[in-house]
Amino acid sequence: MYPVTTPVLPDRSLWMYDTTLRDGAQREGLALSIDDKLRIAHQLDELGVPFIEGGWPGANPKDVQFFWQLKEEPLQQAQMVAFCSTRRPGRPAAEDTMLQPILSAGTEWITLFGKSWDLHVIEGLKTSLDENLAMIGDTIEFLRQQGRRVIYDAEHWFDGYKADPTYALATLKTALGAGAEWLVLCDTNGGALPPEVADIVGQVRTQLTQEAGSPLALGIHTHNDGAMAVANALVAVTAGATMVQGTINGYGERCGNADLCALIPNLQLKLGYHCIPPQQLTKLTETSRLISEVVNLAPNDHAPFVGRSAFAHKGGIHVSAVERNPLTYEHIQPELIGNHRRIVISDQAGLSNVLSKARSFGIELTKQNPRCRDLLDQLKALERKGYQFEAAEASFELLMRQVLGQRQYYFELQGFQVHCDRMPDGDDWRSHSLATVKVKINGQTILEAAEGNGPVAALDQALRKALLNFYPAMARFYLSDYKVRILDSTAGTAAKTRVLLESSDGHQRWTTVGVSTNIIEASYQAVVEGLEYGLMLQETGTAQTASP
Amino acid sequence: MYPVTTPVLPDRSLWMYDTTLRDGAQREGLALSIDDKLRIAHQLDELGVPFIEGGWPGANPKDVQFFWQLKEEPLQQAQMVAFCSTRRPGRPAAEDTMLQPILSAGTEWITLFGKSWDLHVIEGLKTSLDENLAMIGDTIEFLRQQGRRVIYDAEHWFDGYKADPTYALATLKTALGAGAEWLVLCDTNGGALPPEVADIVGQVRTQLTQEAGSPLALGIHTHNDGAMAVANALVAVTAGATMVQGTINGYGERCGNADLCALIPNLQLKLGYHCIPPQQLTKLTETSRLISEVVNLAPNDHAPFVGRSAFAHKGGIHVSAVERNPLTYEHIQPELIGNHRRIVISDQAGLSNVLSKARSFGIELTKQNPRCRDLLDQLKALERKGYQFEAAEASFELLMRQVLGQRQYYFELQGFQVHCDRMPDGDDWRSHSLATVKVKINGQTILEAAEGNGPVAALDQALRKALLNFYPAMARFYLSDYKVRILDSTAGTAAKTRVLLESSDGHQRWTTVGVSTNIIEASYQAVVEGLEYGLMLQETGTAQTASP
Repeated sequence: MYPVTTPVLPDRSLWMYDTTLRDGAQREGLALSIDDKLRIAHQLDELGVPFIEGGWPGANPKDVQFFWQLKEEPLQQAQMVAFCSTRRPGRPAAEDTMLQPILSAGTEWITLFGKSWDLHVIEGLKTSLDENLAMIGDTIEFLRQQGRRVIYDAEHWFDGYKADPTYALATLKTALGAGAEWLVLCDTNGGALPPEVADIVGQVRTQLTQEAGSPLALGIHTHNDGAMAVANALVAVTAGATMVQGTINGYGERCGNADLCALIPNLQLKLGYHCIPPQQLTKLTETSRLISEVVNLAPNDHAPFVGRSAFAHKGGIHVSAVERNPLTYEHIQPELIGNHRRIVISDQAGLSNVLSKARSFGIELTKQNPRCRDLLDQLKALERKGYQFEAAEASFELLMRQVLGQRQYYFELQGFQVHCDRMPDGDDWRSHSLATVKVKINGQTILEAAEGNGPVAALDQALRKALLNFYPAMARFYLSDYKVRILDSTAGTAAKTRVLLESSDGHQRWTTVGVSTNIIEASYQAVVEGLEYGLMLQETGTAQTASP
Repeated sequence: MYPVTTPVLPDRSLWMYDTTLRDGAQREGLALSIDDKLRIAHQLDELGVPFIEGGWPGANPKDVQFFWQLKEEPLQQAQMVAFCSTRRPGRPAAEDTMLQPILSAGTEWITLFGKSWDLHVIEGLKTSLDENLAMIGDTIEFLRQQGRRVIYDAEHWFDGYKADPTYALATLKTALGAGAEWLVLCDTNGGALPPEVADIVGQVRTQLTQEAGSPLALGIHTHNDGAMAVANALVAVTAGATMVQGTINGYGERCGNADLCALIPNLQLKLGYHCIPPQQLTKLTETSRLISEVVNLAPNDHAPFVGRSAFAHKGGIHVSAVERNPLTYEHIQPELIGNHRRIVISDQAGLSNVLSKARSFGIELTKQNPRCRDLLDQLKALERKGYQFEAAEASFELLMRQVLGQRQYYFELQGFQVHCDRMPDGDDWRSHSLATVKVKINGQTILEAAEGNGPVAALDQALRKALLNFYPAMARFYLSDYKVRILDSTAGTAAKTRVLLESSDGHQRWTTVGVSTNIIEASYQAVVEGLEYGLMLQETGTAQTASP
């Protein structure tokens, strides 16, 4: 029914260009070690992204080292790209020392950014409009003479074009003439809107195609300040851009860059472009989450396509409909990008959600079972106390098994004590945490004590000491994330705290919850359920709740 | 330079329609009490949003009560709207009990949703296409007879229109004929793309304007599954829609609804439409953050327009440029929407950032001061240990004052001890937390002990007991947020924890940070700095770091 503007390329191939390692790293709160950068680069390589921008060698010492280390562990398929600016005003590129570390990085491709906006040339660079053109041309020619291939990023393109289209086009013509193979139109301030982006990309194409005389390779680089990064990149593609620059999870300065995790499926599944091989597309969700782990930022559960909630269904009627025909409430098949449908448990939960959840746990439960009502009641009572099972499905599965009389108890708690202190020790401080636990296993009462780096660690240690002889599998469990939130902020440190704890055995992950005014107690509840669930997993093999 | 499609209305007025209380509440992890709903409704009323959808009375008991309670505290300007579906198949609207609570809610306006997509009629409702038309017409006529005005939400509009445009248009014609005053085109699954939305809205306008014979009032309702909610709503407006439905902060099921906090400034500041009065527009950031507090979700720092990082500048060159001319790196003036520019402190921080930050703290510091280097070094050393000052500006100000010899010490810590236990007490459990602190104030050593609901509360109490006689202002301080994150997740509970603690005196808020492997110790550091900073604020009046 609905035809989108015919794309330029007959084979509908697009070149994806990832700049998570450079522009993404500008995000407030994100700091990457060299190891982090290497892990991310190899993950992107596996995903099938053909261009990966690694950083600006010379602008910081970490990036120099990164490019060196990458030579030891080269990428399989992708091109690693070094990023830098045009030479400084007033001296030839060959004499600008800034360009030396770029060449030393040893990449075939270099992305060079230059000014398109007269305002930036005059106020930012404090040079003349002509000298800016010379800087663009001279730097590209120099890099070409050194045998490099050049992608030209036209910074502030859209603002520059709107201010003075003739000058802005002159910068692109200079870059083209000097041998740049790609011209990338950047919305650096992120304020452009889709209709103008489509329009301007079209105008550039018309004007430069005549100029170039050969197929023109245009790219698009957008930011999200107006909430338009993904839309702007998409309409630029429909207007003729064939390279798309973005970052995983949309990381980037201020409000972020165009999110490749949303762009790739939109372009590939809805508009029929080819971005990455379909079998790699199924790794998209995994890539998004892995990279959020590497950069140590909580994943955005509500992210389009790859978020944990992206295919989550809450309302009761809705759930029965989606189970009958997924097309009715899902814009794409989640499996195509490696995500999956989820039925959410919450105080809006109807019976159909609980039944559907039970099925996903492999628990047989029918509407007729009178325990369904008990389960819903208990669920609502716990939620009123501050428990939240949406994010703690392992705890929910334990609760469900408990109400149905199917929960196995591996041990029985009989109490704990924790002591922490911090005292001066000469000029320094000495800290100390000690925990004692009492548990009953197979009729035997075990009392164990342990020290730890903190009270939760000491408790965890003491508990493991007590249990390990009975359950050796426990040696593989570890805590993979730990989040605390206060529930009623006006009550200060006396407020209720909710702890969400993610555990792992190296293969699977599962989340448990604890709530208490006492953070130690809340943590303890979550630790205990985490251990219990892990033991259950060992026995039953795989549970649906745990994510691979 | 760039003209966008001419809008339909000569006066460029648009009707904003907020559905945070209904569709927003579908977001996973969000649960609203009646008090929460009332606070949000009044906040939206103050913002100048003319339509506020309050809920579906009858679908849950909370919503019935909400509409009742709202009559006690009526809105000043906005219309409160009740939401419901068309009647059930096979019986007249007058006999469908589902509609009774809607009428009892007592609103002038009712938003009725109905099916546009043949697939949903047949597979979802399990009725005939004709009966669906009858359900739409009959329900609207019934509500009109009861004196209500009707907004018709055409659910799954875009999918329905693409599948069978003739039938989809027939549903709208029926609604129009029965007396609906607005026809709202909904992208319920959130998968539509801007070019097709613009196209289809235009087609509907052309076809129904002839039909209606009078000015046609079209609305748009979008979801963010394809990362297009804001863009789709915007292009629908440029194609002729004059009502925009969305939610504050884009809350909503799965990936959320169109974010009014991004849509309103885009439409009003960039395209010249009138959405809300300009003086109210300056309350947008405050509204976004207040509502995120009411719903108890951490604000998205990277949200377009209203996020804390939306106008944050990190890189060194960048910072000097933006200080010379904000236009160079900002797409709008942050003050127009009540946000402000921020200079970020991080390990990419150059000297210019530190100097700019000092200015914002009201500290005189010049490049020539040799302590600048010390400050940068200390900053980097602490960040390597896991401290993060981006989100803890109060701790950064204390650090800066310390390095410059301007930090006032109100008290000196000499140590603490904490004891927690949890023991069986009959059939229940008994928990107990006790803390002892030793501090030195004005040469006097004070030893105090206190109990609390948990170890951090006990410590906080003991510290306040020790200090309150010396600093009575402290009685007004409370903890307004408390966040914990582990820094190296593979180390389990022995990992380093970072605590971010937000304190308030009821007027201002400030954030401090603590890092340690021991969560109690990390919390303690942040509590102590929070108290210290609060005392400093009392003396100096207002500090820039604290947000109003």
